[in-house]
Amino acid sequence: MSSSQPIAARLGVDRLEAPITVGTLHRVYFGSDFLSAENVTLSNLIEPKPDGPTRALFVLDQSLSTCWPDLEERIREYQAAHADRFTLTKILELPGGEASKNSSRAYEALLQAINDEGICRQSYVVAMGGGALLDVAGYAASTSHRGVRLIRFPTTTLSQGDSGIGVKNGINKFGKKNFLGAFDVPIAVLNDEKYLTTLSDRDWRAGFSEAVKVALIKDGPFYDEVEKIAGRVMERDHDLLMPIVHRSAELHFRHIVEGGDPFERTVARPLDFGHWSAHKIEQMSDFSVLHGEAVATGVALDTLYSATAGHLGMDSAIRACQCLKDMGFSLHHPVMDRHEDLFEGIEEFRQHLGGELAVTLLKGIGEGFTCHEIDLSKMEEALERLKDFS
Amino acid sequence: MSSSQPIAARLGVDRLEAPITVGTLHRVYFGSDFLSAENVTLSNLIEPKPDGPTRALFVLDQSLSTCWPDLEERIREYQAAHADRFTLTKILELPGGEASKNSSRAYEALLQAINDEGICRQSYVVAMGGGALLDVAGYAASTSHRGVRLIRFPTTTLSQGDSGIGVKNGINKFGKKNFLGAFDVPIAVLNDEKYLTTLSDRDWRAGFSEAVKVALIKDGPFYDEVEKIAGRVMERDHDLLMPIVHRSAELHFRHIVEGGDPFERTVARPLDFGHWSAHKIEQMSDFSVLHGEAVATGVALDTLYSATAGHLGMDSAIRACQCLKDMGFSLHHPVMDRHEDLFEGIEEFRQHLGGELAVTLLKGIGEGFTCHEIDLSKMEEALERLKDFS
Repeated sequence: MSSSQPIAARLGVDRLEAPITVGTLHRVYFGSDFLSAENVTLSNLIEPKPDGPTRALFVLDQSLSTCWPDLEERIREYQAAHADRFTLTKILELPGGEASKNSSRAYEALLQAINDEGICRQSYVVAMGGGALLDVAGYAASTSHRGVRLIRFPTTTLSQGDSGIGVKNGINKFGKKNFLGAFDVPIAVLNDEKYLTTLSDRDWRAGFSEAVKVALIKDGPFYDEVEKIAGRVMERDHDLLMPIVHRSAELHFRHIVEGGDPFERTVARPLDFGHWSAHKIEQMSDFSVLHGEAVATGVALDTLYSATAGHLGMDSAIRACQCLKDMGFSLHHPVMDRHEDLFEGIEEFRQHLGGELAVTLLKGIGEGFTCHEIDLSKMEEALERLKDFS
Repeated sequence: MSSSQPIAARLGVDRLEAPITVGTLHRVYFGSDFLSAENVTLSNLIEPKPDGPTRALFVLDQSLSTCWPDLEERIREYQAAHADRFTLTKILELPGGEASKNSSRAYEALLQAINDEGICRQSYVVAMGGGALLDVAGYAASTSHRGVRLIRFPTTTLSQGDSGIGVKNGINKFGKKNFLGAFDVPIAVLNDEKYLTTLSDRDWRAGFSEAVKVALIKDGPFYDEVEKIAGRVMERDHDLLMPIVHRSAELHFRHIVEGGDPFERTVARPLDFGHWSAHKIEQMSDFSVLHGEAVATGVALDTLYSATAGHLGMDSAIRACQCLKDMGFSLHHPVMDRHEDLFEGIEEFRQHLGGELAVTLLKGIGEGFTCHEIDLSKMEEALERLKDFS
């Protein structure tokens, strides 16, 4: 029945090969009160169908709804003012915070709503909340019908300055952060400073560690600015501080769109400076340490390690730690005394990326570089130094 | 605390906007016995790590393992001959067939294996089997660590000529085919004719309906060739028939890489000719009708509808139906007598794509076009005609 002569020989051709290129526009808007009825930014982003309005499903972080009891009403008013563009199928509240990513409950609830409300590839999911809520909502949007349209509406300093403007979505599984996930470019990101006013002090502070991080690895002059206002972060003056969040967002944005590897096909991830220990500290503390707080610690640790390992002057390292301390971050958490458990974070970080270890370190303020090994005895030294310092 | 002046005004800039472009090479290889130890096609596709071999996890369709009891041993021998390129972490057997996509069991089993075996973004999942197995394995690979590397090894005429060479992955949920899924370009597709020799007659036949489909919508001269051999499909002569499977693969491939919309951002999907009813017939028959068999029926139905609605000559329509009948396809299934239930497939098809209905019809042999509405009374007529014909 079968011929012994391979098809390649019979057909004179043995393979097909061609590039597939997919392009999308990545957009981040900055403003205040995008949900006021006369603001057309959001409604203009929602493309109606040829024969009428499309559908939108709003997903709200529960902690946001609690702070803004009239938010649902405002969304309904906004929709009413833009009824030619979209209908509102549902407003779904979901828990936020990293813990909400540990089970598939929130993810499944959104899938169910997407199905029940007939959300299709021409419909929109508008997700409002912190980074964890955006991760979950983005993952549900990315995987439903192989991708329904997502608008991200980050409402924390951290998500506005960093995670919310990225292209990653995901939930945790097997005890591993973001084990399940998808790269996907949202239709747009709306950074609305109005919703930052009700953040708790801890949540407000948390986002500034990512500004320090990105300044340290990419932008010395920006670092100088951040350092200048470090002691005033908790004054919560938007005129003074929103430019820091904005510049942090811009540096993260530029890295994604200009860095040449938006979907991380290669190994190095410079933006993950300080994150191997940050992820581990979050996990070891049962997520009682916020991501931004853990990042402050992780950045301080790897900065001190950069100095201990001889890449960076110790003065510069101390300067960076002081900046984070001035913001009010605690740079030591009791779980960090379990050095061996903490160091497991290095191998977990390598595994998630795959391939060889690639950790960002500093050779100067504003100058990150990729390093492929860590000297654990020097890391112990950095840990002790950090404990003393804090 | 908050300033009433929006950040946009304060910063003189209110948005960031830049394109994100991601490019990948899509490759399909044709051959026989890619797993013979001296064949380097597969091993060359597996990139070792800088410091040694990478990891590979093989996933086998259970029905394939049953037909090839020595397959595991052959994979081990292949790995041993290419131990410089990769280590074999595990050979996982999973059920195939559309039913395996209805629960997340097979999907979760593969996630578990990916986690347990330390498969990372620089590791490989090699999936061998029919289209359903490839869908499940591809979805697990796409979502683990936001994408581990996938090599597809389709082993049915249908997956070699159509689904296996595509860029879609997914599983069913909420009773909807491929509700959950991801677009992702595999590292490569290996079309190995060796594994077609043990297919059941039904499975062997099933793939040829997709060849008829793609010929009817895209390539008149190819249709003439297919028609010529239609009565000889069940002779299973590879010299005669593999060129049909190959050309079908090539037309599907070209549509993906040259069609301008590999990830289906727009609505029309010409390759889904005949598929609205095919999907519904599969579902209504509890998947006792194979996908390829349902496609034969769906293609015949929409061809007859094209004629009934005046787009195509009735002679041409009858010719196409005869071609499918000559291959041995039954063009009527009892579930099709429930017209109303069947017609729900039209709305479900629209919903999955979103936006307005877009159905491919024929205006000639080899000439598909997109139509945005269906006249149900003419569709009834086409259904009756098809029942009489079969």
